[in-house]
Order: sequence, then structure tokens, then C-alpha cells
Amino acid sequence: MLPAGYRFSAVASGIKKSKKPDMALIVSDCAASCAGVFTRNQVIAAPLVVTRPRIATGRCQAILVNSGNANACTGPEGIQCAEQTVALTAAALGIEKDLVAVSSTGVIGVPLPLPPFERSIPQLVAELQPGSAEAVARAMMTTDAFTKIAGAKESGDNPYGILGIAKGAGMIHPDMATMLCFVLTDARIDSDFLQELLHRAVADSFNSITVDGDTSTNDTVLVLANGAAGGNLICPGTAAAAVFADHLNRVMLDLAKMIVSDGEGATKMVQIRVIGAKDVDDARAAARSVATSSLVKTAFFGEDANWGRIIAAVGYSGITLDQDRIDISFDSIPIVASGVAIGPEHEAQAGNVLKKETFVVTINLHLGEGEASYYTSDLNYDYVKINADYRT
Amino acid sequence: MLPAGYRFSAVASGIKKSKKPDMALIVSDCAASCAGVFTRNQVIAAPLVVTRPRIATGRCQAILVNSGNANACTGPEGIQCAEQTVALTAAALGIEKDLVAVSSTGVIGVPLPLPPFERSIPQLVAELQPGSAEAVARAMMTTDAFTKIAGAKESGDNPYGILGIAKGAGMIHPDMATMLCFVLTDARIDSDFLQELLHRAVADSFNSITVDGDTSTNDTVLVLANGAAGGNLICPGTAAAAVFADHLNRVMLDLAKMIVSDGEGATKMVQIRVIGAKDVDDARAAARSVATSSLVKTAFFGEDANWGRIIAAVGYSGITLDQDRIDISFDSIPIVASGVAIGPEHEAQAGNVLKKETFVVTINLHLGEGEASYYTSDLNYDYVKINADYRT
Repeated sequence: MLPAGYRFSAVASGIKKSKKPDMALIVSDCAASCAGVFTRNQVIAAPLVVTRPRIATGRCQAILVNSGNANACTGPEGIQCAEQTVALTAAALGIEKDLVAVSSTGVIGVPLPLPPFERSIPQLVAELQPGSAEAVARAMMTTDAFTKIAGAKESGDNPYGILGIAKGAGMIHPDMATMLCFVLTDARIDSDFLQELLHRAVADSFNSITVDGDTSTNDTVLVLANGAAGGNLICPGTAAAAVFADHLNRVMLDLAKMIVSDGEGATKMVQIRVIGAKDVDDARAAARSVATSSLVKTAFFGEDANWGRIIAAVGYSGITLDQDRIDISFDSIPIVASGVAIGPEHEAQAGNVLKKETFVVTINLHLGEGEASYYTSDLNYDYVKINADYRT
Repeated sequence: MLPAGYRFSAVASGIKKSKKPDMALIVSDCAASCAGVFTRNQVIAAPLVVTRPRIATGRCQAILVNSGNANACTGPEGIQCAEQTVALTAAALGIEKDLVAVSSTGVIGVPLPLPPFERSIPQLVAELQPGSAEAVARAMMTTDAFTKIAGAKESGDNPYGILGIAKGAGMIHPDMATMLCFVLTDARIDSDFLQELLHRAVADSFNSITVDGDTSTNDTVLVLANGAAGGNLICPGTAAAAVFADHLNRVMLDLAKMIVSDGEGATKMVQIRVIGAKDVDDARAAARSVATSSLVKTAFFGEDANWGRIIAAVGYSGITLDQDRIDISFDSIPIVASGVAIGPEHEAQAGNVLKKETFVVTINLHLGEGEASYYTSDLNYDYVKINADYRT
């Protein structure tokens, strides 16, 4: 079930030389509550400079997105161009400029041309329709192999829907940069609380995945809540809020896992689950260290239950640990107990787990209650090929 | 010129199934001043547990090293075995146990067998001779493609020599882990001052290189100064100390660069030089972020002057920066000025620089006087092959 009160359109504007769809518009029937999370990279693309203060007002009605050019490292002209695309969209929709967000993804360092926007924005507005967000998801793709859409539906007393659309397959190419995610709901919720829920959901989804450890200049997650379902306001501390948070978390985690599965060259999606850490920060740091290790990721590709690389990556993560307490298992197969190998039979069984496309590596530190997961892909020849050959 | 008063030997003890040399002994004629730096990984191999407190006494006369087994993640039995190898060496040499250091490199998590040591240590002692350290360097190799030896010679009023021997080609395999480096000099210098000089030299050499960003459980650098050259004591704050520090730094930087050149699958050795940072810590953090980026390293392999990846890696390094001030050049070719591309002609010229085996990427942040370099290799198919296929 799509959330009510949203319309979508997409076109091939000509920014992409391939003539594939590369520009899309999402419009809410009314100004929605909104929340946003942006890249922590200090090199920030022009659309983020323009969109961040708008999202901070807590209200948004339209999102204009293009692929094929990231409008990053483009100087003052890049910011001016982003402002102009906002003005064109607001004028065509007949709404305030402050209600328009813009996002870009694609080549870094190449000036973003305005003419494709001048030509295409009127067409995007004219073709807006409810129904499917598939065309939008397609127009956002760069190196993505498939569109990424996830949804949730609440069917209680106050029914509503949540729809998430994302793109990204790693940092990836700064030429083909960026993780973008737009989440739309027709639930009613204030922007401050929405921002709080978004931060929590991002921590356990998009901030817990890694393809190559690189962070793009354009990463953006926006959530719009337009209240079009007609339900009650969802307030902090209520059961309804907990239900909404669960739905939001699940939609975003589903999208995050899709991004890892679509990681450049990825053949596997592996959950690195750290339990028994001193606290959740330690658990997250250890999981991240293992998930981003090139050696661990290469071993996954080689289907090698190489726990030495895993334990070493935990060791240099900087967390509190006692190496003599560490247990490691692959799915249900224990392979290390108290920091020492259990034996070759277990390693052989773990080798069979590694042949699967998805599996879970559980690392128990036996120090406390801290628990966190990271999702990662394998590192293989195709990753090298995609990233070495792209611009040549 | 080899430093005086050291003897060497190496044998094939049978730890390596290949029957290649895998055990070596370095002995000083008298107890030498010593200093050491060990892995910051919290998962620490048994030989480090045993050797660290010995080096802390400031005196050392013999170093026993084996390849083929790292004696890491081997529990209390591993520590006991390391202690036994110390005892065997001390007995065969007729010296105190506290004067013997041991190092291991190779497979993680497999018990280290004592019999090869029982058989080989008497032979190693019997065959000790001055002359060449080549056999020692060879016996330390695991995935290394070549032996790594560097030297320096001071020929002033107080002449002395410095000899450095290293192994390592990345973390690399925790199966085949570890960076090891032994530096021998016949200069006279107290252990406390030697330790201070070593810390500084390591910061600009072994702690400024990266192949894959992983840190092994066994990394060890030891320096012995036996005074056999008969010169004056080298004291802090003197001209002689500055000269000695320069020699030590250069020997260790030479070895560090050899390790990067021998990085698994490496075809290029690239210096990432950050200048104009707020301070040296910022410069180091930015250089490290660029040098460890999989995307940057893959672009080097693709010989692609992909500055977008470089500027993005600077951006997520967490340092103070102003993206509108960043300049980037490849060797002498400027490619980015004030955060924006200079133009396609410069990118084409920079592309020619990337065809070289070694080159320098200079990133000027224009914020202060901070300066630091990291040395890195490219990431390519062979890296994946070596690391994915090893245990299969």
C-alpha cells in the first residue's frame, strides 16, 4: 500500500549521456513534516548546502532528484545552479521555494548544466501521478544493478503506509557517488520527533552498512510525513510511536541490506554481529572494524573461514576486550572458543556456511551487554574492475 | 658496511612445509642497549607477550625469529612454547634468558611445535657468523617477494653502521601475518634515548605505510645498539644524536617503502603528502584516510587521476578543513585548485603521472603548517587473488 497524498514522475533529461531516466520529482499534496540526515563528509556537495537549511525548517513538499552529475566540488556556481533548480521547481508547482528539496548523484567535479532542468521540470510537473515510485527509483540509479524500494503498512486503528526509495551500491564511484534515500509516509508526526526517530533508524541501518568504507559527499536521507492517512498525531513515548519506529527501522534496514547486496561486485551479504561487548559503542566499533577489513571481505569472497583475520580486526578496533574470552561462530557453527580455534572439523563446517550468499558471523566478547550489527559485502575481482576501469 | 659485533645464522627447521629457511638467529657479541615497538592490536601473539618485558629492561643480546607459524591465538600453551624457545636459545648461547627476544610470523591459531626449535637452535648457534644478514632476511619471509635490507654508515669522528632487516607485505595474511623489523647498530647509545628515537622513526616510517589498513597481532620492531664500533656515547640534544636519528629514520623509511612496494599484488608505490594542514596530527589523519581508501587505491591501479575520490577521503577524515581551499597535484601537475577541477588538459597530464610506478600526490589544505606523508600501494586483482585464495 502506497502512502496517500504523494505523486511521482521521472524523465530522461539528457544529463546522462545514455539517455536513461535521470531526473525525478516527488510531490506531497500538502506541505509535510520532514526530517533529514546528511553526509558527515566535510566535503559537501552543492545540493546538500541548499537543502539542509530547508529541511531544518521541518516542512517540505517536493523533492527533485537527478542522477548523472553529483554537483559536488563545483564551487559557488554549483550552489547557484542548485538554487536555480529549486526556484524552477517551486515556480512550476506554484509553491514556496522553502518547500523544495534537491538531491544529486553522479560525477564529481563537473559543472551541473541548467538547461536539462529548464526543459524537464515543467514536464515532470505535468506528468505527476500517484501509483508507483518505481520510475523515481529507476531515475536515481547510477551503478545500481536494481531499484531499491521497501514498504511497511500499519493496519491498526490509525492506519498508514511507509514507502522507502533508495539508491547506492557503495560510496561508490565519486564519479557515480552517493547513497540517497527518500522515505514517505502518510502518518501524522511532528518534524522534531520525526528527526529523532530518523537518527535512531539511520544508526542501525545506513550507518551500519559498508561496501568500501568510503563516505560520499552527497549522502542524503529524507523522511516526509504528510498526515494524508488522516490518523491521530503520533506522539513521543506512546505505543503508536514505538510501532511507527519499528516500521521505519525495518523499511530503512531493508533498503540498507539491498544496498549491500548491490555493493559493487558483491556476491555475498554478511551480517557481522558483535554481542557481549562492554557497551553498544564498543559493539558497533568492533563490528565496523571487522566489516570494513579488506582482508576479511576478501576471505568471504574466497569462502575461507579465516577467523584469524576477524579476531585481528576486533583487536585493532580500539575497544575493551580480553582476547582469551572471544568466541566466534559462522551461523550456528562455533569456530573459536575463548580466543582459540575449536578444531579443523568446525572450520570445515564453517566453510560450508561461507558458500551461502548470506550468513551471520557472531562475535561474542563475553564482557557485557553491548550488541550491534554491521552488514558488509565481499571484496572481489569485480569490485576492482568496476572501480579501476570506470573512467578509462 | 655491517655494524661490528653481530653474528647471524638461518636454517630450514621444518615449520614451513615447503622446507624453505624458516628460523634465524641474530646475536650480539655483548649485551646491547635495546628498544622496541610492538603492535597496537589488542590481540597479541605469544612471542610479544614474552619479548615485551625483556625489551623493557633495555638490554638484549639475541633475537630468535621463525616464519611459518605466528604463535598467535594459541592460548597459554603458546606462551609456554615461546618461553621454552627463549630458554633453549639462552642455554645454547650460555647467556641469561632475559637477554633473548623471540619473534614469530606465519599462520594464526595453529599451535607452535617445539621439536623444530629443539632440533634447530643448537645448529643455529653452531653456524653463527658475521658477514651477511641476507640469510636471516630470507628466513623471515612469508608472502614477501623479496628480502628487505637497508643500511646506513656514519663515517665522521665516531664511525658506526646501521643495518635494518624487515619482512612484511601488508598485514598480510593473518595466516602469513606480520611486519617484523630488526635494526642493528654498533653505535653506543643508552636504551632510554634509543627508545625515544625509535618511536619517532616508527611514526614517520612503519606507522605511515598502508597496504590494506589491517594491523597484525605480531608486528614488532627491535633496535639493538651494542657499541662495538668503539665510539663515544651518543647523547640527547647533541649533533651526533641528530645525525644518528637521521640515519635511523632513513633506514626505517627505506624498509617501510620496500614493504609497500612488496604489498600484496602492488604495482605502484604512491606517496600521499598532505601539506598546509592545521597541525601535523591533521596532516597525518588526512594522509592516512586517502592512503587507506579502497576507492583511491583502485583508481591508482586503473591509472585514473580520480581526484574526486581523494577529496572525498580527505573530507571524511575528520580533520579541520575548508573545501574551497584544497589544492591537489600529481607530481608537479596541479589538477584541483581551491576545491574545483582545473580542467581536462591537466587531468590528461596527471593521467601520465599515474602510469609511473611511483609518484607523489600532494594535497595542500592551505590552513597551517602541518605536514605528513603516507605511503600506499594500489589495490588490484592480485591483492584479491592472494587474499581470497590463500587457504583454499
